[in-house]
Amino acid sequence: MFKFVRTAKDGASSARTGVIFTDHGEIRTPVFMPVGTVGSVKGVYHRDLKEDIKAEIILGNTYHLYLRPGLDILRAAGGLHSFENWDRPILTDSGGFQIFSLSQLRKIYDEGIKFQSHIDGSRHEFTPEKVVDIQQTIGSDIAMVLDICSPPGIDRRKTLKAMDITHAWAERSIARRDSLESLTGRAFRGNLFGIVQGGFYEDLRIQSARTISAMDFPGIAIGGLSVGESKEDFIKYLAITAAEVTYKKPRYVMGIGTVDYILEAVSNGIDLFDCVLATREARHGTVFTDDGMLNLKRASNRLNDGPIDDGCTCTACSKYSRAYMHHLFKCNEMLGGMLASEHNLTYLYNLMLRVRKAIEEDRFMSFKQDYLARFYADGGLNRK
Amino acid sequence: MFKFVRTAKDGASSARTGVIFTDHGEIRTPVFMPVGTVGSVKGVYHRDLKEDIKAEIILGNTYHLYLRPGLDILRAAGGLHSFENWDRPILTDSGGFQIFSLSQLRKIYDEGIKFQSHIDGSRHEFTPEKVVDIQQTIGSDIAMVLDICSPPGIDRRKTLKAMDITHAWAERSIARRDSLESLTGRAFRGNLFGIVQGGFYEDLRIQSARTISAMDFPGIAIGGLSVGESKEDFIKYLAITAAEVTYKKPRYVMGIGTVDYILEAVSNGIDLFDCVLATREARHGTVFTDDGMLNLKRASNRLNDGPIDDGCTCTACSKYSRAYMHHLFKCNEMLGGMLASEHNLTYLYNLMLRVRKAIEEDRFMSFKQDYLARFYADGGLNRK
Repeated sequence: MFKFVRTAKDGASSARTGVIFTDHGEIRTPVFMPVGTVGSVKGVYHRDLKEDIKAEIILGNTYHLYLRPGLDILRAAGGLHSFENWDRPILTDSGGFQIFSLSQLRKIYDEGIKFQSHIDGSRHEFTPEKVVDIQQTIGSDIAMVLDICSPPGIDRRKTLKAMDITHAWAERSIARRDSLESLTGRAFRGNLFGIVQGGFYEDLRIQSARTISAMDFPGIAIGGLSVGESKEDFIKYLAITAAEVTYKKPRYVMGIGTVDYILEAVSNGIDLFDCVLATREARHGTVFTDDGMLNLKRASNRLNDGPIDDGCTCTACSKYSRAYMHHLFKCNEMLGGMLASEHNLTYLYNLMLRVRKAIEEDRFMSFKQDYLARFYADGGLNRK
Repeated sequence: MFKFVRTAKDGASSARTGVIFTDHGEIRTPVFMPVGTVGSVKGVYHRDLKEDIKAEIILGNTYHLYLRPGLDILRAAGGLHSFENWDRPILTDSGGFQIFSLSQLRKIYDEGIKFQSHIDGSRHEFTPEKVVDIQQTIGSDIAMVLDICSPPGIDRRKTLKAMDITHAWAERSIARRDSLESLTGRAFRGNLFGIVQGGFYEDLRIQSARTISAMDFPGIAIGGLSVGESKEDFIKYLAITAAEVTYKKPRYVMGIGTVDYILEAVSNGIDLFDCVLATREARHGTVFTDDGMLNLKRASNRLNDGPIDDGCTCTACSKYSRAYMHHLFKCNEMLGGMLASEHNLTYLYNLMLRVRKAIEEDRFMSFKQDYLARFYADGGLNRK
C-alpha cells in the first residue's frame, strides 16, 4: 500500500505538508527520518524511537545490511522489521552511495557495480535487479533504485555517463520490480523510489529530474546533493532539480541533517530527509538547541542546572541538567550519548512539527527566517 | 531512617531474607546492587533501572564522584539523587578500595591517605572524617567508612597494621558522623556501615569482625574479599568472617558478581553485594543464562532466533533474538551493550527473587546446588 496525500501548501514557497500511507502506518511530511544503518539507530532503544521520539519511519541501508547481518539472516528473520522489532515503516537506501563512499575498490560497468566490502575486503556485485531483490528480502516499505552519485569536481562527460547509467538502471529496477511476482511468486512488497542525479550541471540535473519523474515511481529522491559542494551550490542545484521533479509525488533529499539544509529543502517542497549527523554529533556531545549547536563538553555547562533546550520534551531535557550531561560526557559514560541521541532526534521531530504547523498556517517562510536568524545568531553555536 | 527486619531464615544455612527501610524506600534482601560508579549505571537509563530491572538500590563511588563531577557540582545539585534523578536508595563505597586499585601514587599514614588522581595526577587527601563529609554531600543512604584493603600476599605485620588503622578510622568515622550536626548544623543523612578487614589471616579476620561488630554501625561490610585470592580462600575467609559478624545487622560483601560467589555469600547470611561485572561483561557481549555465561559474539548465535534466556523478562529476551544481539555486537552497535546490560541486571534481579523464594520455602541449599550444577554443567559457559 502506498498513497501520498498533500494536506497543505505554503503560499510563499513550494513547502507543503502531506501524509504517506504505507502497510506499516502513516508518515506525516515533511519528516526527518532517523538513520538505523544496520538495523539499529545508534544508542537508541526502538521503544524510545516510537514512544518518546515518535519516529514514524526509520532508515536502513541496503549495502550495510547485505554485508551484515547478511541476507540469510534477514530471510530467516522474515525481514528487517521483525529482526529489529520495529513495526513502523522502514526506508532503505540502495547502497549506491555507500559503495562510493566506503568501498576502496569498485568498478562500475553497464551491468552493475563490483566492489569490495569495507569490512573484510570480500568481493561483491550489485546490479539494479539484485538491489531490488535485496530490498524485497529486507522488506523495505520504501526502497531505492541503485544509482551512481557524481560529486562536485567530476567532469561533464563522466557525470553524463553516470547519469545515463543511473537512468538505465532505474528502468531496469522498475522492470525487476514488476516481474518479481512472476519470477518469485511474490510481488514486490515495497514502494520503489527513483533517484535523480546529474551532478553539478544545470542541464543534466533538469534532464535527470524530468527523466526520473516520467518513470513509474511512486516517489522521487534527489541524490548527489550534500556530497561536498558549497552551501551555495547545494541551494542552487536543489532548487533547479526540485523545480523539475513532479510535485505530485513524495520528494526525498538524501543525507541532509543540518537545520539550514532541512529548511531549505522544505521550502523547495521536499517531504523526506535523513542524516546520521543527529546521532553522530550526539555521541560526541553536540546537541541541537534553538540557539544553535551546543557542545555539552564545554566548561560553561559544568554548573548549569538548566536543560539542554527549554522547549524540548526529551528525557535529557525533562529529567537532567546540562551539568549532569556535561559530567557524563567528561566521564565517557554511555548514558551521555544515549540521552543526547534521543534529544537530537526528539528535537528534529519537534522541529518538523513546528515546520508543519507553519506551513498549515501559511507562514513557513517567516518561520524559516526567524528560526534560522536565532539559530545562527552566534554562527550556529550555542555558547550560552 | 534505617531499619532492618529479618523476614525468613533458611534451616540448612545462614541464608536469610529481610527488608531494609531507608528514607528513599525499601530494599528487599538478599539484593544485588547495580553499580553506577560516577552517577550512571553504564549503558542503562534510570527509568529502565527502576521499571524494567526493578533495582531497589544502586551504588555510587566516593572516590570517583569526589574527582568527577566534584563536590561543588554535587552540592549545587543538592546531592547525587537529584543530580542523576534517582529517587531510590544509593549506597556509596568509601573510595578506600579505589585509591588502592586506581591511584598510582598513594601514601597511607595514621591521619589518612594521600593519593594522586588516576585522571589527571592531581594530589588529594582522604581522611575518615573527610570521607564521611563527602558522603554527606553525596547524600548516600548507605555510606561506608574509609578502610585499608589487604590483598593476598601482604605479610601478617602489614595486614595487622592496616587492620588497626582501619579500626581506628572506623571509630573516627563514627565520631565524625555523630558530631556532624553540631559541626555543620545538619545531622548525617545516611547510615554508616563499618568495614571488616584482616586480610587472609584467620585470627585477624575474626578480630576485625568482632571489633567492627561491636561498634555503633547499623550495618557491616566485609571488605578485602574477591581481591585476587583463590576461590577456596574466598569461601574460607568469607565463612570465617561471616560467622563472627553480628547476625542482627545487614551484612554486605563488596565487589562480588559471579553467581557462585553470590550464592556462597547468601548461604553465609550476606544480604547485599555489588559488582561491575554484570555491566562490564554485558558491554563485551557476555550475558548470564541459567546454563552459564553466553558469549553473544559466538557464531553459534548467528542464526539463533531464540532469546538469550528463556525465563528472562528483560527487553532483549522479550523483544529480540540471539541472532539480532549477535549482529549488534558484530557491528559494535551501542544498542548491543545497552540491551545486554539491561539483561544482566534483570537476570541478577530475578535470580535474587528465586533466592529469596528458596529461603522463604526453606530450601535454599538445594536451590543453590541445583542452580550451580546447571550453571556450571559446561564449565560455566553456555555453548548452546
